[in-house]
Amino acid sequence: MSTKQAKVWIYAKEFKGDVELSNFELKDEEIGDIKDGEFLAEALFLSVDPYVRTFQLQYPTGSVMTGRQIARVIESRNSKFPVNSLIFGNLGWRTLTAVNPENYPKKHDLFILPDLGDLSPSISLGALGNPGNSAYYGFLDLCKPKEGEVVVVSAAAGAVGTIVGQIAKIKGCQVIGFAGSDEKCKMLEQDFGFDKAINYKNENVEKLLKEAAPNGIDCYFDNVGGMLSTIVIDQMRNFGRISICGAITGYNDQTIMVPAFKSFHRNNLRMEGFMNYRWINEWMEEGMFQMLKWIQEGKIKCQETVTEGFENMPQAFIGIFSGKNFGKAIVKV
Amino acid sequence: MSTKQAKVWIYAKEFKGDVELSNFELKDEEIGDIKDGEFLAEALFLSVDPYVRTFQLQYPTGSVMTGRQIARVIESRNSKFPVNSLIFGNLGWRTLTAVNPENYPKKHDLFILPDLGDLSPSISLGALGNPGNSAYYGFLDLCKPKEGEVVVVSAAAGAVGTIVGQIAKIKGCQVIGFAGSDEKCKMLEQDFGFDKAINYKNENVEKLLKEAAPNGIDCYFDNVGGMLSTIVIDQMRNFGRISICGAITGYNDQTIMVPAFKSFHRNNLRMEGFMNYRWINEWMEEGMFQMLKWIQEGKIKCQETVTEGFENMPQAFIGIFSGKNFGKAIVKV
Repeated sequence: MSTKQAKVWIYAKEFKGDVELSNFELKDEEIGDIKDGEFLAEALFLSVDPYVRTFQLQYPTGSVMTGRQIARVIESRNSKFPVNSLIFGNLGWRTLTAVNPENYPKKHDLFILPDLGDLSPSISLGALGNPGNSAYYGFLDLCKPKEGEVVVVSAAAGAVGTIVGQIAKIKGCQVIGFAGSDEKCKMLEQDFGFDKAINYKNENVEKLLKEAAPNGIDCYFDNVGGMLSTIVIDQMRNFGRISICGAITGYNDQTIMVPAFKSFHRNNLRMEGFMNYRWINEWMEEGMFQMLKWIQEGKIKCQETVTEGFENMPQAFIGIFSGKNFGKAIVKV
Repeated sequence: MSTKQAKVWIYAKEFKGDVELSNFELKDEEIGDIKDGEFLAEALFLSVDPYVRTFQLQYPTGSVMTGRQIARVIESRNSKFPVNSLIFGNLGWRTLTAVNPENYPKKHDLFILPDLGDLSPSISLGALGNPGNSAYYGFLDLCKPKEGEVVVVSAAAGAVGTIVGQIAKIKGCQVIGFAGSDEKCKMLEQDFGFDKAINYKNENVEKLLKEAAPNGIDCYFDNVGGMLSTIVIDQMRNFGRISICGAITGYNDQTIMVPAFKSFHRNNLRMEGFMNYRWINEWMEEGMFQMLKWIQEGKIKCQETVTEGFENMPQAFIGIFSGKNFGKAIVKV
């Protein structure tokens, strides 16, 4: 009998207000021999996602932090998951996990990655995973963009926003993004093909938006809510569509002031919110592979902010709420 | 050559804030012999509609008030509009009009009424006209109600709301309406089949709504905006649909505070505003006749508040903004 050491991050203190290092505690865990049907997964990349801030609240303190990871199978007593397989698993913040696939009945919580060629398997946490499919379905299904239309994306430099902007370009749209620093705006315009990026912190958003889209906005993909969204909606065109993805900054109950008559009634606007799991079957069958194809064709760039070291998970997590990342936040073990 | 006397209401003073009697001026107008291709229309019923409050602003003072009417052809030099025809016409606030159909190129601005049997031709201004088709398309197309679902209607005792509630009952829904007096609420429940009517002025709306729909709301047809709408949206179920028809009380820029994350994102809500003219072709072909069929089958009751006398047009118009009417407001000449 051989035992192995796993490192795990514990949800030590309940989240209240801003996330702090004291919310987490690093522990060692001994993992014994795996049983028949199980395999041992060694984490390569861990996903750092804002949704965990609210999702974690349903679990008691003392439990392991929830989260997704890409891992390599290093021992196996399950023929479906042979040694050296690369897997996606909803396994939590852990370096090493004894996995019984029967405990993961939903295909999207545990699966072997498709062949990614030379691409980093970490993209399965970003462009091919939750953020990528939020962008793919949340934008295409709800905004239904047409060639030549004007698309606005908030939190455009984030994991979802960078993808939405690039999909909008593939569809032949004019793309305007909001981001929180001049550096991000520059990268969106220079490296990601955005027609215009606006720093919402420094500039007169209302005026710049009018200049960038003098004839109004057709589609708005919203990651933010609040006053910024109110300004955008006020400049939308007849039959405009708004997709509400979430509120990356803080996951508060951000409200949008909707001028009911002026905008919605008179301009025939449509606004729809979504939880991306409504498309989970489609994305495992189609969205993931369409995204992969676009990446392989060079039409979508996968932007990641990678933090090295499992011990830095909490810092990386705190970082996404202060706008530190550009694209998908990843921790490399 | 014979001349006839028409009475017309002039837009005398620009609308600002509440509508007042001093905004209008009654004048006599002489109408000479009709020319070839024209006919003479004598008004029977005039429509009193909130949209005129904003619509009129695009015309200079001194012009005739805009509005729709049902009239009888009393003289004709146009074979398509023979004497005694009953017509719908966008002719303004006038008792007598020399009409050249070439000045009304859009079919929906001037047409001969279908055979209504014993029904009052005034229903062509209500259930078969703008309000009825706002209800029909705005509710069915945007809310897409399913049998057994819970539907909430604001301004439920209005021209549109009374119809929406009855269509929702036809579709097998549970219907909850908001109205501004106990008397209206009583009538909605007793005479119009609403499962529950709530007086939004007197009662604890949030609590009563929770009691009436403990499992949440599927569809919300909104004529109002503002805080009431925020309360309703907050109690909506997953995949709920909201149709924004307008804001009958004052046509101000009423805002809805939309909790972007909590409601829209998490509950996959969809909200769509509309101007009913987007369905104008459909309604002239289908909606009008489906409504007529339901009325003839006794499934829809046409509620009207009728004011007698052309001279009382301004009073009737002012009345709709203070919630005095139940159902469609009409003036009988």
